[in-house]
Amino acid sequence: MDTLTRLEQTICQRMGADPATSYVARLHAKGLPKIAQKVGEEATETVIAALGGDKAELTGEAADLLFHLLVLLNAKGVSLADVIAELDRREGTSGLDEKASRSAN
Amino acid sequence: MDTLTRLEQTICQRMGADPATSYVARLHAKGLPKIAQKVGEEATETVIAALGGDKAELTGEAADLLFHLLVLLNAKGVSLADVIAELDRREGTSGLDEKASRSAN
Amino acid sequence: MDTLTRLEQTICQRMGADPATSYVARLHAKGLPKIAQKVGEEATETVIAALGGDKAELTGEAADLLFHLLVLLNAKGVSLADVIAELDRREGTSGLDEKASRSAN
Amino acid sequence: MDTLTRLEQTICQRMGADPATSYVARLHAKGLPKIAQKVGEEATETVIAALGGDKAELTGEAADLLFHLLVLLNAKGVSLADVIAELDRREGTSGLDEKASRSAN
Repeated sequence: MDTLTRLEQTICQRMGADPATSYVARLHAKGLPKIAQKVGEEATETVIAALGGDKAELTGEAADLLFHLLVLLNAKGVSLADVIAELDRREGTSGLDEKASRSAN
Repeated sequence: MDTLTRLEQTICQRMGADPATSYVARLHAKGLPKIAQKVGEEATETVIAALGGDKAELTGEAADLLFHLLVLLNAKGVSLADVIAELDRREGTSGLDEKASRSAN
Repeated sequence: MDTLTRLEQTICQRMGADPATSYVARLHAKGLPKIAQKVGEEATETVIAALGGDKAELTGEAADLLFHLLVLLNAKGVSLADVIAELDRREGTSGLDEKASRSAN
Repeated sequence: MDTLTRLEQTICQRMGADPATSYVARLHAKGLPKIAQKVGEEATETVIAALGGDKAELTGEAADLLFHLLVLLNAKGVSLADVIAELDRREGTSGLDEKASRSAN
């Protein structure tokens, strides 16, 4: 099983764990707005690392962003497989054309 | 090969394509700040979808966020494998303890 | 009357204007999530301009951010005077000490 | 003198203060990327408060966003007066038409 799927399972299992010992449980206990806020924060840090940091910083921030995105998806009952399927669908059915037709505002 | 890795390859190939026919090439031609901005925008949309949208909206926004994160990483020469390795490292070496020791500000 | 207060009044008046001729009316017609998204986008652009742009770019992005923040506040029935009063309250009652006691995470 | 201008002066004076007693000095000591990150964070919190919080929460988050935006502008040598002048310029020279001609993506 790949890392992201395993991470998703771990996150799911920890949702109901003891907040005293689990970061995911602690975040979950604070509620959805707090989880969403972390995604926003990590995205900002990713943007900043991309513009001014080195590769290691960007790698670390992107990992943080992915991690918290998985927590957010899990909290809303959306699986990584759902998101992957959506990416597959775009790639598969409309492919290059869909992407070409997007405007890059 | 899994979807994300294939998507990463497609993005990489399109970086140098004709901006007239490729969204990725068009975005790339606008420069790194514009790519970073898209990641910030998609993260905001993901936050908003998580708080007020249904599962389908969140799935779509998360797909957009992942897609643009891959474009940003690619533009900086960081591979998805690097980010996965970082997530593996955290999970593997320090595991639960590292996560437990994080503060959930 | 100062610029921000006048701008706030203009925004308030345009909320109910014809979307065909008013940007504010058009944004308002799209609903609160869209207005909130614009605040998030302009904040990201402000961050990017602060890190890589010149003073003129930062000035323009900060103006965009302030403008859309006023639209958001207006849409929720919060006045600029309310926000100023909150800043006054922090400055006045607890002053330096409150700020000194904050942690700069 | 109005609150925002006075706040701007206070921020400017504290930039060089002792980080042990001043939040602004502490933030400044961490560098521009950290200040920019705070603006991104407060914007995300403002978005979340606008979508799910009450008026008091939105007022508080908007105050935080304005405060950190002033810190960021100050760190880059841009004054609030510069930003106000830009808002005045848009309102004055092109007025309704400029705003009407914007697209509300």
